[in-house]
Amino acid sequence: MDEIRLIEVKEDIQADNEKIAEELRRRLSDQKIFLVNLMSSPGAGKTSVILKTIEQLRGELAFGVLEADIDSTVDAEKVAAAGVRAVQLRTGGFCHLDATMVTKGLEGLDLEGLDVVIIENVGNLVCPAEFDTGAIRNAMILSVPEGDDKPLKYPLMFTVCDVLLVNKIDYLGLSDFDMDVLRERVARLNPGMRIFEMSAKTGQGVKEWADWLSREARSFVHG
Amino acid sequence: MDEIRLIEVKEDIQADNEKIAEELRRRLSDQKIFLVNLMSSPGAGKTSVILKTIEQLRGELAFGVLEADIDSTVDAEKVAAAGVRAVQLRTGGFCHLDATMVTKGLEGLDLEGLDVVIIENVGNLVCPAEFDTGAIRNAMILSVPEGDDKPLKYPLMFTVCDVLLVNKIDYLGLSDFDMDVLRERVARLNPGMRIFEMSAKTGQGVKEWADWLSREARSFVHG
Repeated sequence: MDEIRLIEVKEDIQADNEKIAEELRRRLSDQKIFLVNLMSSPGAGKTSVILKTIEQLRGELAFGVLEADIDSTVDAEKVAAAGVRAVQLRTGGFCHLDATMVTKGLEGLDLEGLDVVIIENVGNLVCPAEFDTGAIRNAMILSVPEGDDKPLKYPLMFTVCDVLLVNKIDYLGLSDFDMDVLRERVARLNPGMRIFEMSAKTGQGVKEWADWLSREARSFVHG
Repeated sequence: MDEIRLIEVKEDIQADNEKIAEELRRRLSDQKIFLVNLMSSPGAGKTSVILKTIEQLRGELAFGVLEADIDSTVDAEKVAAAGVRAVQLRTGGFCHLDATMVTKGLEGLDLEGLDVVIIENVGNLVCPAEFDTGAIRNAMILSVPEGDDKPLKYPLMFTVCDVLLVNKIDYLGLSDFDMDVLRERVARLNPGMRIFEMSAKTGQGVKEWADWLSREARSFVHG
């Protein structure tokens, strides 16, 4: 198991987050590191999706992970146990990551040889949507048990993300979740949003999303 | 259907939230209104639990509801459709309620004849835990699909609440959620926390929680 580095991060309220995010994006572009910011509610399956994605693309792309949590290291432990280079960012009660925290996290992660870094943001559909982390792509997970009404309630999150992973589709049929209704609601907010249906548990649909991510990352790295 | 009153609320960063919360609690004590602040992740089932609770206690206690949402009125519409007096608080992107917002909401809700008012806070396990709303009791929902590791990741929420409703127990067995492990983790953070297992969908366990709420409310009103 790789060692887990724990970094305490704090918000710098003086900082111009947009500027720091732009600088970080420029640096990552030079370094050819494809940074993905993954957001969702608590328990939607961020860690499981990350692990399944990395497993699917093993041998194709080298991944690192920045795990953000208010106060624990359970996710970084899970990811490191799978042999993935990971850093735990502890936000100390803070509800989202900003570009300063991500910059600090990337300094703690050895980027040598990596192609893709996934940020697992704090589990929260509200605040993380408001802060540019410097990522090249924003992705979100909505899990089926949360319901198909979430675009109505958390519109900013569905607007700022490039891709939506509808996870836990093995729960479809147990709830009144209507995929067509969800797709309509998403299209009204963000017509260009890519949507992938999947179950990190059964593995269904993981390949389609991973293929998309791989194409995006390769065209960024080689483009 | 009762009319839905929509109130736009904003944070007053100058205000002393603790002081306003204490004042509100004193006023509610004089008025014999039992105010409950209900918090959870998005999609854990706050609205469904509220509706089932009110149905269970119909004829015993008169309820009003303050619905908080960033940008929609879907929950207030559902509650009002069930004939319950409701006000929708729209936070305009804001991630939690504070005591000023709740005070404003209660002014918009006619309290005459009510015994209990339930606040449905913004779906978020982080920020709402940090702000005293003036409620007499804090309650939270954790739904089974979110996982049993949430006390490790959102400890403040589990610490500030008096009662935990473990919802969607009809999903037990479909996931690796371990109720004993959850109870141990909760006990370590908050040994006095009451825990009720339930399913708002099937109705299982609703009575036990509703009975507790009824006892608490009656002892507050008559005590």
